[in-house]
Amino acid sequence: MPTLLVRDLAQVVSPAGVLAPLRGRALGEVSVVEQGYVLCVNGEIAAVGPMGELQADELPADVVELDGRGRAAVPGLVDCHTHACFAGDRAAEFELRASGASYEELHSAGGGILATVHATRAAGENGLAAALERHRAWMLAHGTTTFEAKSGYGLDRETELAQLRAVAGAGGVPTWLGAHAVPPEFPDADAYLDFALAEVLPTAAGLAEAADVFLERGAFDVAQARRYLEACRAAGLAPRLHADQFTEAGGVPLAVELGARSVDHLEATGRDGVRTLGASDVAAVLLPVAALFLGRAMPLARELVDAGAIVALATDFNPGSAFCESLPIVMSLACTQLGLSPAQALAACTVNAAHVLGRAGRLGRLAPGYAADIVLLDAADWRYLAYHLGGEHVAVVVKEGEVAWER
Amino acid sequence: MPTLLVRDLAQVVSPAGVLAPLRGRALGEVSVVEQGYVLCVNGEIAAVGPMGELQADELPADVVELDGRGRAAVPGLVDCHTHACFAGDRAAEFELRASGASYEELHSAGGGILATVHATRAAGENGLAAALERHRAWMLAHGTTTFEAKSGYGLDRETELAQLRAVAGAGGVPTWLGAHAVPPEFPDADAYLDFALAEVLPTAAGLAEAADVFLERGAFDVAQARRYLEACRAAGLAPRLHADQFTEAGGVPLAVELGARSVDHLEATGRDGVRTLGASDVAAVLLPVAALFLGRAMPLARELVDAGAIVALATDFNPGSAFCESLPIVMSLACTQLGLSPAQALAACTVNAAHVLGRAGRLGRLAPGYAADIVLLDAADWRYLAYHLGGEHVAVVVKEGEVAWER
Repeated sequence: MPTLLVRDLAQVVSPAGVLAPLRGRALGEVSVVEQGYVLCVNGEIAAVGPMGELQADELPADVVELDGRGRAAVPGLVDCHTHACFAGDRAAEFELRASGASYEELHSAGGGILATVHATRAAGENGLAAALERHRAWMLAHGTTTFEAKSGYGLDRETELAQLRAVAGAGGVPTWLGAHAVPPEFPDADAYLDFALAEVLPTAAGLAEAADVFLERGAFDVAQARRYLEACRAAGLAPRLHADQFTEAGGVPLAVELGARSVDHLEATGRDGVRTLGASDVAAVLLPVAALFLGRAMPLARELVDAGAIVALATDFNPGSAFCESLPIVMSLACTQLGLSPAQALAACTVNAAHVLGRAGRLGRLAPGYAADIVLLDAADWRYLAYHLGGEHVAVVVKEGEVAWER
Repeated sequence: MPTLLVRDLAQVVSPAGVLAPLRGRALGEVSVVEQGYVLCVNGEIAAVGPMGELQADELPADVVELDGRGRAAVPGLVDCHTHACFAGDRAAEFELRASGASYEELHSAGGGILATVHATRAAGENGLAAALERHRAWMLAHGTTTFEAKSGYGLDRETELAQLRAVAGAGGVPTWLGAHAVPPEFPDADAYLDFALAEVLPTAAGLAEAADVFLERGAFDVAQARRYLEACRAAGLAPRLHADQFTEAGGVPLAVELGARSVDHLEATGRDGVRTLGASDVAAVLLPVAALFLGRAMPLARELVDAGAIVALATDFNPGSAFCESLPIVMSLACTQLGLSPAQALAACTVNAAHVLGRAGRLGRLAPGYAADIVLLDAADWRYLAYHLGGEHVAVVVKEGEVAWER
């Protein structure tokens, strides 16, 4: 692999410092090098600095140069919560919801998650891989160089495992969301969990890195979530939870009890939950597009930051409640709806998201020793990423030291 | 100009019927032809129908064919309210606002509109034209084939007229927003209006199609807005108003009194204003991105539709309160935040927006006799335009029968 020099960049931007995750005041600090370069060797960042300090005579003869003039560089974005491995769409449901039907009404009417389960089961392993490849390309074009994706649209042994294999095959980080919904062939949640833990977990544990559960009225309750996550943790999977999306139902205390990697959504979390998370090492993953799609109140993001919680941001990319693969749009919403600064939003989509995926120290910064995942923006000011809503921001994506995408 | 045949389209979609503007129940009706074609002759649409009815033997030998497989076609989008002719940016202001400063605080602190006035005056006529050309290309890539753009960042004779010439030169519809703010060289709004009406209007009236005023606390009051718009109307310009963005300050009754073409914003308009507009022929132009950027309540859109008002949607594209050129994002917000259906949102960005620009019957439908402005989507279902937030929807844009943009 040749050495890559990205030169004459208007800005080289990275969350400041060396710690991960970032919380409190440190979340909002970025380092900005003007007129800078990034040097990548063997897929890693070897050096970052101002052009004046570049040791040009020490570069190998076969160095590949990339022109950064007029462009800001930021770390490759990390999407730590997606459901990108799905087939079909729910455009008809979107249309119905716009006419006033609620998420829970649509779910009860046979729409919702189970509609996508039906389409995903029917897609077959090749169809699923093709759909995910299309979604992966969309994400890359928005600057996402690392994505997590969950199963949970199979809910049978074959399709759950096919989803996990597809995610790994597409270079993503697989999470087993075995407890997403109760499929129609089981009488109740406990009977389904008996099956899932006995028949799917043993193989899923070798494919996934984390396990996730949808703790919500109509899905799984606290006792069921605890049972599922304890079994998954014992099998080596990091616990994560969907909690407090519609109702505050005990997910935050459970996450702390289990030492979960993250608790995600939190639209309904109140001040007690904020304090609990602020005093814990459980990351709060906020998903503002889902709140926007469903017309719900936004989570108490600024309060979480002020309380010292580890805050990450993600798309929640899925065909029902967040048909959006764009982390720049998430960053924009973080600034306009969650009260975060652009710098906080950037850290929440890079260093802190990498932490949620167990990749802190490797992903999320433009600094020596990190993977050479770099997004070159079609703007000289990195804040355009949040400021320019819907802009086609991304000019070039570098993944592990090689150009992976160009507009 | 050769004949253009767009064939084998998954869907050909158009606001239904022949009337314009659309209001009440008619706003939500679309015509969808599956497996269809659009035939364009001399820059106009000559025929639309299912492939089975295409008279292939009647086509000229030099017909140009465009493959529509897997794609839905919708009318070229019409953005009827932008401030796209500006120089500079306000990224720093965006960052400050994310930290809690209000629009009015930033405005009082010398930011806001006057910051862009400073940059726009400094850009010179060529700089301004180059900036607008960049913005026009952004808009086109999001499917906007016709845009309105206002002056109002000059507020001196030379720059106001330069803005209007730049907009016309870029193929846009120019609106003289002579009453956007009071520039610092004038002691008060009345003294500035004396100047603008005496020194700028006579030439602006030959360049612009409409006149617009920012009726708001800190900008222009009802008496000043009436004086400005009456003079402009006498000079042949159609009256439009920015009103009720922050406070309900008499803009709606004034718009009706003057027979204005439109009243725009309306975030603060209450039920009385809704009833007034429902009984009038003044179009209500809603700008949900501005409400999103500023964290304000959304306008009462569904109530306006139910009251029978003429509702249009636009981006409000500007560097301060809505740095977003994407009508698909506006349509998405219309569905998730305003309670409109995808069909209502489409009509509001096509037929009704064309009405606001005085181009009803010529723009906004895929139907014989309309301009051949067509957007081919990278999706077989036209609802993706609203459903897929931030998607790179647009595959091909046809303007007046010729391919103007391809991804």
